[in-house]
Amino acid sequence: MSTADTNDDERYVVGIDYGTLSGRAVVVRVSDGAELGSGVLEYPHAVMDRTLVASGAALPPEWALQVPSDYVDVLKHTVPAALAEAGIDPSKVIGVGTDFTACTMVPTLADGTPLNELPEYADRPHAYVKLWKHHAAQPQADRINRVAEERGEAWLPRYGGLISSEWEFAKGLQLLEEDPELYNRMDHWVEAADWIVWQLTGEYVRNACTAGYKGIWQDGEYPSSDFLAALNPDFADFASSKVEHRIGQLGDAAGRLSAEAAAWTGLPEGIAVAVGNVDAHVTAPAARAVKPGQMVAIMGTSTCHVMNSDILKEVPGMCGVVDGGIVSGLYGYEAGQSGVGDIFAWYVENQVPAHYREAADARGISIHQYLTELSEHQPVGGHGLLALDWNNGNRSVLVDTELSGLLVGQTLATRAEEIYRALLESTAFGTRKIIETFNASGVEVTEFIVAGGLIKNAFLMQTYSDILRLPISILASTQGPALGSAIHAAVAAGAYPDVLAASDAMGRLDEAVYVPNEANADAYDALYADYSELHDYFGRGANDVMKRLKTARKKALA
Amino acid sequence: MSTADTNDDERYVVGIDYGTLSGRAVVVRVSDGAELGSGVLEYPHAVMDRTLVASGAALPPEWALQVPSDYVDVLKHTVPAALAEAGIDPSKVIGVGTDFTACTMVPTLADGTPLNELPEYADRPHAYVKLWKHHAAQPQADRINRVAEERGEAWLPRYGGLISSEWEFAKGLQLLEEDPELYNRMDHWVEAADWIVWQLTGEYVRNACTAGYKGIWQDGEYPSSDFLAALNPDFADFASSKVEHRIGQLGDAAGRLSAEAAAWTGLPEGIAVAVGNVDAHVTAPAARAVKPGQMVAIMGTSTCHVMNSDILKEVPGMCGVVDGGIVSGLYGYEAGQSGVGDIFAWYVENQVPAHYREAADARGISIHQYLTELSEHQPVGGHGLLALDWNNGNRSVLVDTELSGLLVGQTLATRAEEIYRALLESTAFGTRKIIETFNASGVEVTEFIVAGGLIKNAFLMQTYSDILRLPISILASTQGPALGSAIHAAVAAGAYPDVLAASDAMGRLDEAVYVPNEANADAYDALYADYSELHDYFGRGANDVMKRLKTARKKALA
Repeated sequence: MSTADTNDDERYVVGIDYGTLSGRAVVVRVSDGAELGSGVLEYPHAVMDRTLVASGAALPPEWALQVPSDYVDVLKHTVPAALAEAGIDPSKVIGVGTDFTACTMVPTLADGTPLNELPEYADRPHAYVKLWKHHAAQPQADRINRVAEERGEAWLPRYGGLISSEWEFAKGLQLLEEDPELYNRMDHWVEAADWIVWQLTGEYVRNACTAGYKGIWQDGEYPSSDFLAALNPDFADFASSKVEHRIGQLGDAAGRLSAEAAAWTGLPEGIAVAVGNVDAHVTAPAARAVKPGQMVAIMGTSTCHVMNSDILKEVPGMCGVVDGGIVSGLYGYEAGQSGVGDIFAWYVENQVPAHYREAADARGISIHQYLTELSEHQPVGGHGLLALDWNNGNRSVLVDTELSGLLVGQTLATRAEEIYRALLESTAFGTRKIIETFNASGVEVTEFIVAGGLIKNAFLMQTYSDILRLPISILASTQGPALGSAIHAAVAAGAYPDVLAASDAMGRLDEAVYVPNEANADAYDALYADYSELHDYFGRGANDVMKRLKTARKKALA
Repeated sequence: MSTADTNDDERYVVGIDYGTLSGRAVVVRVSDGAELGSGVLEYPHAVMDRTLVASGAALPPEWALQVPSDYVDVLKHTVPAALAEAGIDPSKVIGVGTDFTACTMVPTLADGTPLNELPEYADRPHAYVKLWKHHAAQPQADRINRVAEERGEAWLPRYGGLISSEWEFAKGLQLLEEDPELYNRMDHWVEAADWIVWQLTGEYVRNACTAGYKGIWQDGEYPSSDFLAALNPDFADFASSKVEHRIGQLGDAAGRLSAEAAAWTGLPEGIAVAVGNVDAHVTAPAARAVKPGQMVAIMGTSTCHVMNSDILKEVPGMCGVVDGGIVSGLYGYEAGQSGVGDIFAWYVENQVPAHYREAADARGISIHQYLTELSEHQPVGGHGLLALDWNNGNRSVLVDTELSGLLVGQTLATRAEEIYRALLESTAFGTRKIIETFNASGVEVTEFIVAGGLIKNAFLMQTYSDILRLPISILASTQGPALGSAIHAAVAAGAYPDVLAASDAMGRLDEAVYVPNEANADAYDALYADYSELHDYFGRGANDVMKRLKTARKKALA
């Protein structure tokens, strides 16, 4: 962080990024995007995926819940901290923008009160926020996809032919079918991205991004009540009664900062609050990567790929294409990998022996860095391993949360750092599969830009360059989403005419930081051929063992 | 151990078991098989699989060497220790028997001197003992199998249609082709089982068991020089010049204890020394399991299955059938799994985080026991995982050292103890595959008897019973092979007319200690169906990714 500019003419915006485990606020200078101060808060309740904190009750497999008050705590702690670090006069802040994980859903009353805050529902799992990686609605997603295909629903191809169990309709249908009392009590089924804007402004405005990508809002309509009734008669009015609401365009102001939110944050009452947005989507303008063909990969616990294009195509297994979903005037495409950093973290927490940690601690480096250093000099293929990166399911291009991880090639000589490297590589193979699918569909990927926490692993970046055979450009900010939210705040406040102009002034990118090593790329081509064969064998129905194992597990643990 | 019987009429024998990592001697009472004292020595040079100790030079992948002087050290240390613990008068010992890992090969001069003991060869890897699990002769084994099949060699079906890279001819051909100078200097290519008897007696006698199972000695003949010349012209006289030698039948005396060996051991000079034998094969009489249909599984680092039958059949993928290979008058069948306890040990050494070890240490139990306790109460299928037990290749029924491990079903919730349990289960599935193959070939398995170090894991034994749907009987000795060697010593010394009579008097078995849990067996049937599908897909040519990965690894590391 640079120290605050003392120029009295400078104006500032605050971007707030809600991730999976924490929220962070960044104070940004409107004129050039300089990041002047930040604050972070880990969510007090983190992710509830084994037990419900309120009751201690065990949660079934595939659940992932959060507590909405944690999001308000982020406002109270991180904005004042960021302002203090920036050392600016808060009265010079002209706007606030936010971005959120998605699809992350809050069931609320008409006034926005989350159902879990009603004392009688505190011990009901369905009263809580269903985090994006809550994967227990797969049966409902399967039904949505089957019925939509049978009926030839026109919106289905916009989502690569498959609606995810992570999205609004699958999670909503699960709520109806597993806890109808709560479903009936719920007035709004709210994206957390919009719920937090509601807390800031007192007004509920849906954002066009999640409405399109997660809410099946296409060409101005939600799925029909006929379709919804075919899923479940009691679901017929889901869209009209629980989902439908005024939609705001990206970069517009959703409203003005309320007195209460001004008190929480220390920001001036009445400043512009941007329409809600999604972490991945705001990152594209932060990286000045909003032109057709520029794919931005936000690599963290998971990876989200976003890209604009001037043509509308149906890419198999993409998460969605939404007109104006990233910036207005272009088709915004999204794809994703549901486990990336999460897989590496799972591995180091559950599979790495003590002596690695001790050696890493002794050197004062992270276990990730240590494992990387141990494995990075091995020639390509030297570990003899190949993995499928599906420990958290496959989002693109198979769109199947019932898939799982696979590792092949272990011998008695296999070491932990070798498996770690194979897992790194597997996520790059998964990205290549996505890019090849886009290219084959006529939506060409011409640049690959990386943002997110994983850019700090230079070996991982080089591996991506080698496996993708593309130069890797890097978002030159460690707070990409927050910077992107700040860009949207500047537009909402009227400081720039549109997101493109604000992106050009405030975004930043280091171009072609990594370029492919041709010899490694050749060796990886051979491994990728095997990855593809396993990908199709286990992922496209030739052997559904992964699904049978998950079904057996659920049955055994029921 | 009971205390020594003071009856002056009692006579004793000593059985010595040479395992993968250590050798052990046991003093046994001839009248009833009571084990009165034992001694153990871990081999000072252990297994050299990464570097050659003498030079520090790196060994290529798949190598596994030992130092023959370690075997003599076992004699010097363990026999005196066992005699001391037994507290008997050494003059009452009437015989010594030995068993060894196989196929473990020593290249020697005419007088039995191992080539590595010649100073000029001390830094030559090929001068050392090639341990059973030395798997670097696979190209030679492939050629042997191809040429034998093309020529229709009559002995090939006796080995399930495939000669292993672990055996005498593949390892010998590798020696010729990679270090012809050493090959030409070598006078005898000696099974370690026979080399140790040579050290005890001063006489070189081949045992009928390894000659048949590992040396392709069938119907009184070795493979022809025509066949050998077809492999490599310089290999034409391999059998006649390096391998062929006088063969002794199991239970016979190979000779008398030499003065030198008497001095090493403290045993009387001139007592009977039994013909050499293999650890697995001597265990059958120790378990009183020498009748047709009684399959004995010796479960340790690897598992060896031995069984007698009164019929001669060709079982696909068995290791071999040898007339009189276990006891005379019956056909001895052998099958095996090349990685069992080795896989569990690899896993706990390379994949289990510190907190498990700390918890195990705090309770004073082994990490294996702790992981077992953590996972054993989970219902069948509760971990959602499935593994192939091929980390050390597959011996039966695929006979392919180029195969490797596989794990499928990992999620972000997967814990180390769950993977550990999946590995335990995978070895039971591998055993079931072997038993089903025997049954399908008309050589019926009616009883399953377990010996070896893994019997101490009761959960593992119950899992085998559930997965095999067979009662599990247990060899009631923790020193099964040594007891079996002692039984052979008693026969060699003339105390019993034959191995069957000695087995009946001296062997011991606890019958049906574990019986199948029907509900678990039903659940495992479903998992076994998936194991079989993966087994055939990866093991029978549908997808040779494991071989491609190994080839790429060798190329990358070359």
